[in-house]
Amino acid sequence: MYRDLSHPLRTGAPTYPGDPDVSVEPAATHEADGYSVHSVELGSHAGTHVDAPRHTEPDGATLDDGGVGEWVFDARLLDLTPCEAREGIEPAAFPDDLDPEIDLLVVRTGWANAWGTDAYRDHPFLTPAFAERCVDAGVGVGIDAFGPDPTAPAEPTDHEPGDEPTGFPAHHALLGADRPIVENLRNLAGLPDRFTVYAFPLPLAEGDGAPARVVAETR
Amino acid sequence: MYRDLSHPLRTGAPTYPGDPDVSVEPAATHEADGYSVHSVELGSHAGTHVDAPRHTEPDGATLDDGGVGEWVFDARLLDLTPCEAREGIEPAAFPDDLDPEIDLLVVRTGWANAWGTDAYRDHPFLTPAFAERCVDAGVGVGIDAFGPDPTAPAEPTDHEPGDEPTGFPAHHALLGADRPIVENLRNLAGLPDRFTVYAFPLPLAEGDGAPARVVAETR
Repeated sequence: MYRDLSHPLRTGAPTYPGDPDVSVEPAATHEADGYSVHSVELGSHAGTHVDAPRHTEPDGATLDDGGVGEWVFDARLLDLTPCEAREGIEPAAFPDDLDPEIDLLVVRTGWANAWGTDAYRDHPFLTPAFAERCVDAGVGVGIDAFGPDPTAPAEPTDHEPGDEPTGFPAHHALLGADRPIVENLRNLAGLPDRFTVYAFPLPLAEGDGAPARVVAETR
Repeated sequence: MYRDLSHPLRTGAPTYPGDPDVSVEPAATHEADGYSVHSVELGSHAGTHVDAPRHTEPDGATLDDGGVGEWVFDARLLDLTPCEAREGIEPAAFPDDLDPEIDLLVVRTGWANAWGTDAYRDHPFLTPAFAERCVDAGVGVGIDAFGPDPTAPAEPTDHEPGDEPTGFPAHHALLGADRPIVENLRNLAGLPDRFTVYAFPLPLAEGDGAPARVVAETR
């Protein structure tokens, strides 16, 4: 059984602040040309996508530097729902019975439901200590949010920043250790504890990451 | 074992005549922004990609109309190398021992080697009768060329058009029967007779097709 874990891409799809806008518009039509083709504009980290180490590490590996089999994962679900807005996920949440064969921890925060709203930016995040715990366990991270680090809010709020980290510490911990990150996942509810993830990225040459049609296979 | 069957996407990558140009350019850099993101422009049929029926059939299914498992194939290799330029592939070339479980015929013409040159447009093509034979057998087609129908030459030549079909008869035969087409494959040399193909398309909403990181799994 295959399950789609990817958000659809269409004009105006949500993007990380500052990233290129998404546009999908007709380029050839049945009426004028006898066939249909669309013109697509998007960023390398648009929609559901993977991060290569080069994304945050200036000398990190690009998508060209490994075999395509690196994007097939033995995945474990970590369902943390319900989470609070801007909740920091602490090492205590890390599964204490993780099979050493697992190479991707898929963190469900429930934030996929906020896709397309300002609230999507207020997603839970991985504390740097949790990210380090993943590195120690040899797993990459998939998450149903913009990413493992906090995203700036849509507009100034009276939300107390508290101990939110600044910068990209979870990215640096994971990508600096060559552990992949898969972002903007959806449709995680009801997945079994363990499944296969296919996250083959679009083959952008020397890519710092790329959109991917991410799929789970369950047995 | 996983094998990448996809051409890299970079600025200036080959496109079918009239399709949008491919551009992959920096949008955020380590120096200016502290991370790297690229801006990507391409057509829905750029690089290695899949065709949905909507591509040539005005009322055909889009990428949204089926489950993602439809893009996992039990594939059979049909290695026809060496082929002549603009050779028409006839029904006699269809394998006479095709397992009924097979749902994708991967046709190797050798034309992937011409990727990036004008000669790539002079690819072999499927005769309408061969395409009908595929439909009768219930298989879609993958091919290491722009597509199953002839492509206009780069410039007028003295090549005798002979009995080359005009329009898109092989597309209409296959897509009109809801059989998928996977185009611009590469790296087919040395594949076994039978393998699994993953051709998950980028999730373009209501897509007429989409770029895909196409991967073979061999055992």
